This record gives sequence, C-alpha cells and structure tokens, in this order.
Amino acid sequence: MAASDFLQLNPAEAPRGGMSDWLAREIRRAVAEGLLPAGSRLPATRVLADELGVSRGVVTEAYRRLTEDGHVAGHGRAGTIVLSAPLARPTTAPDAPHAPGPPNTPLTPATPAAPATPDADAGVSGGSGVTGALGTPRAPGVPRTSGPPGTGMLFAVPPGTGVFDALRAAPARIDLSPGLPDLASFPRTAWLRAERTVLAGLVPADFGYGDPRGTPALRRAVARWLAVNRGIAADPDEVLIVAGTAQALGLLALVLRDEGVTRVALEDPSSLGIRQHLHNSGLESPPVPVDARGVRVDALRATGARVALLTPAHQFPTGVVLDGARRRELAAWARDGGLIIEDDYDAEHRYDRPPVPALRATLTEHVAYAGSVSKLLAPALRVGWLLAPRRYRDALVDAKRFADLGNAALPQLVLAQLMESGALERQLRFLRRRHRVRRDAMIAAIADSMPEAVVHGAAAGLHLMVTLPPGHDDTALAAAALERGVKVQPLSWHTQRPGRPGLVLGYAASTPTAAREGVAILGDLLSGPA
Amino acid sequence: MAASDFLQLNPAEAPRGGMSDWLAREIRRAVAEGLLPAGSRLPATRVLADELGVSRGVVTEAYRRLTEDGHVAGHGRAGTIVLSAPLARPTTAPDAPHAPGPPNTPLTPATPAAPATPDADAGVSGGSGVTGALGTPRAPGVPRTSGPPGTGMLFAVPPGTGVFDALRAAPARIDLSPGLPDLASFPRTAWLRAERTVLAGLVPADFGYGDPRGTPALRRAVARWLAVNRGIAADPDEVLIVAGTAQALGLLALVLRDEGVTRVALEDPSSLGIRQHLHNSGLESPPVPVDARGVRVDALRATGARVALLTPAHQFPTGVVLDGARRRELAAWARDGGLIIEDDYDAEHRYDRPPVPALRATLTEHVAYAGSVSKLLAPALRVGWLLAPRRYRDALVDAKRFADLGNAALPQLVLAQLMESGALERQLRFLRRRHRVRRDAMIAAIADSMPEAVVHGAAAGLHLMVTLPPGHDDTALAAAALERGVKVQPLSWHTQRPGRPGLVLGYAASTPTAAREGVAILGDLLSGPA
Repeated sequence: MAASDFLQLNPAEAPRGGMSDWLAREIRRAVAEGLLPAGSRLPATRVLADELGVSRGVVTEAYRRLTEDGHVAGHGRAGTIVLSAPLARPTTAPDAPHAPGPPNTPLTPATPAAPATPDADAGVSGGSGVTGALGTPRAPGVPRTSGPPGTGMLFAVPPGTGVFDALRAAPARIDLSPGLPDLASFPRTAWLRAERTVLAGLVPADFGYGDPRGTPALRRAVARWLAVNRGIAADPDEVLIVAGTAQALGLLALVLRDEGVTRVALEDPSSLGIRQHLHNSGLESPPVPVDARGVRVDALRATGARVALLTPAHQFPTGVVLDGARRRELAAWARDGGLIIEDDYDAEHRYDRPPVPALRATLTEHVAYAGSVSKLLAPALRVGWLLAPRRYRDALVDAKRFADLGNAALPQLVLAQLMESGALERQLRFLRRRHRVRRDAMIAAIADSMPEAVVHGAAAGLHLMVTLPPGHDDTALAAAALERGVKVQPLSWHTQRPGRPGLVLGYAASTPTAAREGVAILGDLLSGPA
Repeated sequence: MAASDFLQLNPAEAPRGGMSDWLAREIRRAVAEGLLPAGSRLPATRVLADELGVSRGVVTEAYRRLTEDGHVAGHGRAGTIVLSAPLARPTTAPDAPHAPGPPNTPLTPATPAAPATPDADAGVSGGSGVTGALGTPRAPGVPRTSGPPGTGMLFAVPPGTGVFDALRAAPARIDLSPGLPDLASFPRTAWLRAERTVLAGLVPADFGYGDPRGTPALRRAVARWLAVNRGIAADPDEVLIVAGTAQALGLLALVLRDEGVTRVALEDPSSLGIRQHLHNSGLESPPVPVDARGVRVDALRATGARVALLTPAHQFPTGVVLDGARRRELAAWARDGGLIIEDDYDAEHRYDRPPVPALRATLTEHVAYAGSVSKLLAPALRVGWLLAPRRYRDALVDAKRFADLGNAALPQLVLAQLMESGALERQLRFLRRRHRVRRDAMIAAIADSMPEAVVHGAAAGLHLMVTLPPGHDDTALAAAALERGVKVQPLSWHTQRPGRPGLVLGYAASTPTAAREGVAILGDLLSGPA
C-alpha cells in the first residue's frame, strides 16, 4: 500500500499553488481521524513526493508546518513521528493560519490498536460521533445502578470531597488511578545519600524557623530546573516553595479572593480534585470546552472569567497539547487582563520529543505557574513551586507564612541536592523510558481487550483517557472494576457538562502485566455477562 | 516523706463511712493540681493504708474507682500509674471538696536569681507589684526613638506580619530569640538511621498520595507519646498530623469561622505571632489578663468570647503554670459552651518536676489540642498534631486535605520511628538537662548584668520573660541590642494592652557563654552611656 493510499490522499483536490497547505491539512486530518496514531511514522519526504507527483519541497514544507503546530516531530533517522492526535476539528479562529480541519463526521480508527481521537468540542461532550469501532456496538455490560456495596458512597454522584481518599483506601489488586509516577522507582539510595550529605553540612540555625518562601538552595535549584526543562527564565526570588500544587492553588485562591475574584474558568473536562479545591475556596468554575487544539479561547472569553486554570502542556485528562494558534489567542486574552494559572503537572513526561515550553516562559506577568515533584519523584514528598506575577508575590508569601511558616527544610535541601547533582534529571530520563513502555503496553491491551474504547492524547504524561460508546455508565463501570480488584477513575468525575462516558487510566505506576490484567477485566465488564 | 504527706492527705477530713470516696477524690485533686503528674506512680496500697491508718481495702477501692474513671491504671509490678489528670471539680460546684487556691496577691521574687512570678493581673500590665529586685531602678539608658537604620522597619510599631522573618534574617552574633530548642543537638545520626530503616521498609504505595490525616504509624506514635508525656488518652484516629502549630491554628480558624466564630480570646501577654495569625484569619483577639495563677477566667468570661487560645502548661511569655483552681474555673467555662484551643508549645520542657497534664486530658470534647516537634527536635521539621473535639474532626480533615493533601510521608515515618524506638524520649531527657543548665546560666547573668530586670516564670520551657522598670522602651532596647549583635524580642510585641516593658529571652539555643555575653550587652544598654 502506498503512503498516499494509506493517508487517503488525492492530489487532484489540492488547490493550485497551495499544495503544501493542502498536504499539511490532509495529514492533520488523518492524524485527527486516527489513521495516523500518535507514535506512528510519516512517510519519508522523498517517498511521499514521488507518490503524489509533487516536488520534495512541497512535502518538506508541509512537514515543517506540522512540526510547528506540535503535531509531528523529526527524529533523525527514525523519521518524522506523529506526536499528538488533535481532538478532531478545531474551531476556526479568525486568524487561524490554516484551512479548517477535517469534516466533523463520525470517524473510525483505522486499526483496533490505534489511539483515536474524540469528537469535536471537548472530546467527550458530544452525543454523536464515535461509536463502537469494531463490529456493531455492544450493549453496555455494566449496570447503571450505583456501585456495589461498600463502594456506593465512593461512587456517589456527585463525588464528595473525600472521594480520592476513599478510592485510595479501597483495597484493590491493580491500581490504575491516574496521577502517579512509577513509585517503585523512587530513588531511595540517592535520596538517603543526599540526605546524609545535607545533614552533614547543616549549621544549627538551619534547623530553626526558615524563610517561608523556601530554602535558598531549593529556590535556586528549581529556578535552574525550570530554565532547562520548561523554558522559564526565573530568578530564585520569584520561586515560592509550597507543599504541592494543592497548596499552590489554595494560596492563590486566598489571594485572588481578596482581590474580588469569584470565578476561575476550568477546562472541561479537567481534574475533579482541582474543581473541588476551587469550590472549597469559594470560587465558581465556569467550564470551557477543550478541542483538538486545546482549550477553546473563544469560549473562555465568553465566560467573562478573569482567571483561568489551564493544563497547556498536557491537558488533563484529554492529553491534548495546546497548539501554537491557541497559545497566541490565550496570550491575547491574558494581555487583555486575564490571569492564567498554569498547572504544569506532568509536563516533563513527554515521550516523543522535548515538551512544549510553559506559558510562563513568555507570559511572565500573566501566568501563575505551579509545578511539583509529585510526578517526578513522589506525591508523598509534598513539595512544589509557585511562580506568580510580581503583583501577587508579597501576598502569597504572607499566605504561605500563615499557612505553615514554610515547607520543612530537610526535604527541600535533599531535593535541591538531587537537582543540582543531576540525580533528578537521571531519574526523569529513567522514568520516561519506563513510562513509555508502560503506555505502549496499555494501549496494546486496550486494543486487545476493550475494542469499544477510543484512546486519546499525546505521547506524554502518566495516564490515558479512553472514551466509550454512549450509553455506558462509567461510574458504574469503575465501581464494578473496583469489585473485581481494579481501581480506575470514571471520566464523568472530571467533567462538568454531560459528556461521553470514559475512563482515566494511569499506566505509569503499574507493571505492563498488571495493566494488561486490569484492562482485560475492564474489557470483560464492558462486554457484559457472557 | 510519707506518701500521704506528698499527697497532702489528712484522713481526719474524711467523712465517716466514706473513706474510699474521700481518698479517691483527694487523689483526683492531687492529680488535677499537678502534685501527681501523668506517668507518676501511686503509693503501694499497703504503704498508703498504713500511713493513713485505714484498711488496705479502702485504698484498693479508691484505686479501683480511679481506674474506672480512666485516671490511673495498674501496671503489674510497676504499680499503679497516673494516666490523665482530671480537672477536679469546678470551684463553683456545690460539692467542691477543697479549699480555694493561693491568695491572689502581688508577688515579688524571693531571690534575685530565682525565677519569679508576674504580678497580679497580667504580670506586665500593672503599675504596682514587681519593681527592680536589686538596688534602685536606673534611668533608662535606651533612647525612645525607633531603631537604628536598617532595623527601623523591623521594630516598627505595630510590628508587621513579616517581622519574625526580618528578625531572623537580620545578622547577629548572638540569637536570644525565644521559641527555639538547642538546635545544635538535633540528633542527625539517629534521624539518618531512622530514615534508612524507614526507606528500606516502604512499599511503593507509601510514596503516593496518603491519608490527609497523616500516616497511621505517626498517629499511633503521637497517641502513645501524648499518653505518656501529657496524660492524654487519645485514639490514633483522633490525631491529625499538621505542618506545625501554625497550620493547626489556620485550620481551626477556617472551621471556626465557618461556624460563625469571629473572636478568639487570647491571654495578654501572648505570642505576637499567634495574634497576627488570628487576625490574618479574620478573627478578633480580645485580651485576657494573666496573673500568678494563670489566665484570669473571670476576665475571659467577661469578654463573651466562645473560644479561647491558651498556653496552660507554661504561659507564653510569662512562664506561669495554670494552677488547679483556675483549671477548675476554666473547666466550668468550657462546660458552659466554651472551646479551649490549648497551645501546648513547650510543655515537655519542665526542669523541676514532670509537667502538669494537658487540659485536653480531662476536657476532651472542650479542647482543641495543638502540639509539635518544633521544641522537641526542630522547627524546621514542620510537624505537629491537632486533637480536636469530635464535632470538628471531619471539617478539619477536609481543611487539611485542601490545604496540602496531608503532610509529607517520609519525615512523618522517621519521626514515628524516633518516637517508638525511644530516641525522642532520650533526646528530650538530654535537652532538659542542657536547657536547665542554660536557664540557670542566663538567670545568673541577668542578676549580674541586668539588676533592673525581674525574671518571671516556672522552671520550664525555652525562654525567660524579664520585665523592666517603667519608662524603658523595650522596642528601642531590642533595636539597640540588634545593632550590637544581639537578637531579642521586646515584651511589648507580645502584649495587647499597654504594660510593663520587658524582654523575652530564649536561652535554649545559645551556649551559656553566648547568653552571658548577650545579657551583658543588654545590661550595658540599659545602664546607658558610661
């Protein structure tokens, strides 16, 4: 099969003089439709040019545009690799540099194993679109009643504030909860060695009360880490060390509420935990749809919210990477007076190419940037950082001081040591390799055992989102899975507007064997009683 | 000394036929008044029966009743051990079995070097009472202008929220700030050894998100620690691990404000940091005078406040220990609907005898108890615990979850290991010896170099309060001392109503040599230009 066949290309459709545009658009469509899943390879430029009867420059130029968009990346002799499956058709912005995307027709993944994309507008909200990919859709095999005894509260609708504690405490053989790196890889020896070094070097005053902003050593190390890994040029004085992103949000909420802010726009879908956090702080969370190019900035504008909490590098849970055009739209929104809270929760985990730079890198005074070591090392460390626009800094330091007088010193210093010695960078490289294998294994398992499921998102992060045919009750599915010893989170937990059912599946903390077994159980539940 | 002497028992007071009742009541009283601290041993039944001239059955029956009450427990060959101190009966109760406490008259120190007690009504607010103990008061040698350049902001009136950060950051050769244990004694080797043990024993899930209430291991260890050291019988499920007392207060403030509380009565004087904390949480802090017997409960009632934040074991900064009669008055206030926030900040550090039991020991449902390792090990650890009345527990867990999802796991587990292995108990014994020597050295230095100063407080804690003759400007004195390389805190920082000038001097974290040198500089400043 020729590459152009595979891509279903017909050069006769190309407008005169616009061949590169046309080709880029068609490839984008093919990616969106799942014909070219994330991780697959584009034809070599010479091969495709020959097949289409165009000059090689036309293909090179098309590939260059796709690279700029973040949809593909050149990997030297490995060729050009598809990175992210856009969520079907982006809505057209007035300044959209390229033609509209593919027609919004129901799509079917080309092969069972291929990650596909959700339908337009939030990926999970549409009622039409993606149906069972293979054969006829099956009747949902999961009852729509609430969960089995013991998990009824856990899977109550809407979920209560203790839902994550309850899920964590529930016994299960296989934990596919999202948000965890491979915990078995925690570098115990390096940590202990660093702690020994730190303890030997401390002066007595280091055991006293400290700077509520954090130890100078860690603030320096974080500033360097962010420069290298996230493209952020920050002075250590801008860095506020916090007890994880949860605390960063709490402190910001306090300061913003004092300023009169009552609403923080949230991507929809987005993390239930974060939504609960905002509500706990007395803030409303107007939902903003997410499509294949990321958050819909036009819809954000329409909410009237002054503040938006976003996950641009790897949208949670859809896995979409905010594209260039949307970044520009967002920058315009911010410059019109908007504040972006950038939750950069797993940005370092990109498996196909270096991660896109943080929004903070270019919008310093419009972005409050939150990161943590929860996905780099372990959530149990409760260490993160917040870089806010200058006008908020004093109030945030006050808020941190009154919250807890500052993070504990020893873990900060150990972490600084791990960052400065290169141990954390080595750990990240190790995790990236391991997580990528686990991601591939889970995608294969889903193709094998859950053919109804459509996998979404870029080759990044610690979790996958899958959507299911309409009619499934994802909460009931998660409850039934827990009964069978498998922990998963229903997608509906993470949506504000009614949408497509689905699951958010963490793969990073489970062995491929466990993930396969867990996915097989999910598939079994989906296909119903034999 | 016979056991009955120690208990101040007079069998002639016993009603006929009610000897066991009487004995049980008298022992309860002795415990409540601190004569029999938690952990101490009751006399053997045979010994006590002989001394009192009663049958052994009378004593056995009395012990049995105390055991039923939960105040004592038989420990086999170890004898009968006092567990928790009841607050005897409120004085207003019709059946009050014993005489009132000591007369409420102004007191003067017996000897220059001896710790003295503050005068009646707040110790520092009255115009009468304590005067220069040795010789005639000298004219104030410190100008009343604000501090020298660079410290003007630091010693601004009133002090700003960043004042402790500024003081800590200011360079000084000798740091006599209160609130620090001997930081040079931090058990680095034991800590590292415990951490190695902990790291070797963790399963991967321990590195994930944890119970926001704290790790079960530390909650168990803290419950045991509080039983042994503070007379508190607590289930580990009651223990909420927090990031130090600052966080405990913040969480409580949130929950209380949600309940409509707008005012938390504070002892006057009391910690400036805590007052700033309450104000930051939007709570007013009506001041309640402290006299030689502790907080004035009549004045507390007069404020109309429903909640009071108190330091009963060792009042900050006066050093007064709340006496038995006041404990009973306070219990009556609490039972009338008052909530006590018990800040047990340095209670383990008693140098002359075991500490009095916590109020929480007997007023479980009326006391929110806050403790921490800041004075046992190091403030830099940011670990503490909060035991609240049952009705607040769920809301506090929610507040802690939203604050930071729970304390970091590793330091909690290391601390649990240190508690369970006895290492923390050894550290405390070591610190008590060292601190006592340092306290004695500072008192001697004050007698030598600052004869105008009157030393206040029990032989306990990590700091001394000294008052100065009226006319001194303690803020200017502290500013001048800092210029000479000595950090101290002016007493006026810690008072709400105008009062006697003075200083709060930490001795625990400084060598006797440094303390002597610092006090000599203070004396020099007090005596003015030669």
